[in-house]
Amino acid sequence: MSATKSKIKSKIWTIEESQTRSRLDYITSEEPLEIRLVSPEQTLAVTMRTPGADFDLVAGFLYGEGVIKSREDIAKMSYCVDPDVDGEQRQNIINVALKAGLNYDFKRLERHFYMTSACGVCGKASIESLKMREIPPISSDFNVKPEIIYNLSEQLKLAQGLFSATGGLHAAALFDERGKLLKLREDVGRHNAVDKLIGTSVLTDELPLAHHIVMVSGRSSFEILQKCIVAGVPIVCAVSAPSSLAVEMAQAFNVTLIGFLRGRRFNVYSGIERIKLAS
Amino acid sequence: MSATKSKIKSKIWTIEESQTRSRLDYITSEEPLEIRLVSPEQTLAVTMRTPGADFDLVAGFLYGEGVIKSREDIAKMSYCVDPDVDGEQRQNIINVALKAGLNYDFKRLERHFYMTSACGVCGKASIESLKMREIPPISSDFNVKPEIIYNLSEQLKLAQGLFSATGGLHAAALFDERGKLLKLREDVGRHNAVDKLIGTSVLTDELPLAHHIVMVSGRSSFEILQKCIVAGVPIVCAVSAPSSLAVEMAQAFNVTLIGFLRGRRFNVYSGIERIKLAS
Repeated sequence: MSATKSKIKSKIWTIEESQTRSRLDYITSEEPLEIRLVSPEQTLAVTMRTPGADFDLVAGFLYGEGVIKSREDIAKMSYCVDPDVDGEQRQNIINVALKAGLNYDFKRLERHFYMTSACGVCGKASIESLKMREIPPISSDFNVKPEIIYNLSEQLKLAQGLFSATGGLHAAALFDERGKLLKLREDVGRHNAVDKLIGTSVLTDELPLAHHIVMVSGRSSFEILQKCIVAGVPIVCAVSAPSSLAVEMAQAFNVTLIGFLRGRRFNVYSGIERIKLAS
Repeated sequence: MSATKSKIKSKIWTIEESQTRSRLDYITSEEPLEIRLVSPEQTLAVTMRTPGADFDLVAGFLYGEGVIKSREDIAKMSYCVDPDVDGEQRQNIINVALKAGLNYDFKRLERHFYMTSACGVCGKASIESLKMREIPPISSDFNVKPEIIYNLSEQLKLAQGLFSATGGLHAAALFDERGKLLKLREDVGRHNAVDKLIGTSVLTDELPLAHHIVMVSGRSSFEILQKCIVAGVPIVCAVSAPSSLAVEMAQAFNVTLIGFLRGRRFNVYSGIERIKLAS
């Protein structure tokens, strides 16, 4: 997978009623962007972004944080050409030279930072960092029929209706191997909903969740996968699309990753062998 | 607005065809949660969350980051009772005592942190921080007919269709005062899409965006508002719901905040006077 494309092609399986077909589909790319100040040399921010319009992103970030007041405050912006940096990753680093004499207290930015677990500055780093923590790939041989997966989204929707009347919340739900809803947690932040869900199982001492399914209401990002992998979850489902890094993490840790789960239809991005297909 | 409720009631206006009605509606609460380690005393993370299930959130966060391996590793968790902290804000701080002898390199966490501009540990802090930067409230007396607003979502959808085939992207679009689409930017991260959008205007020297409308594809959070306020945008629209802090920011800086803009219907959460209602 290239680091610098806004979308990448990946082999997926679409399961609808009793039909299964495999095809190549586009997946939104999610890669870190490091914004580096040239002088004094320092990292200003690392954000997970979709490659494309990167200079706009840097200008907008610096403007929003009050570092620059207009384009004149940027003397130069360029992708990294450091020979010590792996070629593919150079497109994930932008060097910014500010106008001479520009005053800004960069310490303030440190408290405004958007950091993520991927600060190693490449998607591989976040996968490596889990491996370094000796988090093993999911070994659970648990598998399910499509019928069980079909029922999850309706249950999530019903349960969400009970919990929320605002329409403004992400949900994360835990199901057992028969597709029975065990727990639901909601939050304005997707990753918090997953932390809350897994946190209840930590506090009730039910980990690892080796015979469980987690479903989230929105998209799946690498963070969602990371949290589920640490908790040993073999099947992760989302109502919407996964990012490229979510797919890479799922593949690296043997997770069955399902997206676009709506009614009697879903896509499988990784770990198809846990879905019992009609033979 | 209480800091510790998962949803709050706010007066909103619903505009549909030529009808306008005002009512109280629930809005999802968005408040910072600071996770504090008791010994050695330090802030482990600050995350914007919806209050509720806070101990689950802390347990899940610590587990996901590898700080704890099981509930036994947490000796005690409690809300802050520090008399120096404003009563309402105590519910936004959780003190965690870990099991004696637990080894963890907390420096590592610093690089995993989710920090936001709201790290002052209350929503008010993020509003104050913009005021401290001397960002003025939006003074633009620009106003629009509902007809112009109705047309935005269809245009956003069409333009998104051209740009993206993945279904996995957030979009942010800039419209002029007649509702003509000027620019669209997409990203896996909502705040990045807005940074990219405003960044193009920084680079083409078109700021402030005093006669413009910004529309985002998902929900509106306080970050979206913050970025738009700095760029001087008077009207901010979203396909989905705003958070409580987004509404508070819009009110504090005189922004017209529109949510649930779908077809010929939308809600106004702040700044109704910029909408020319049928008399």
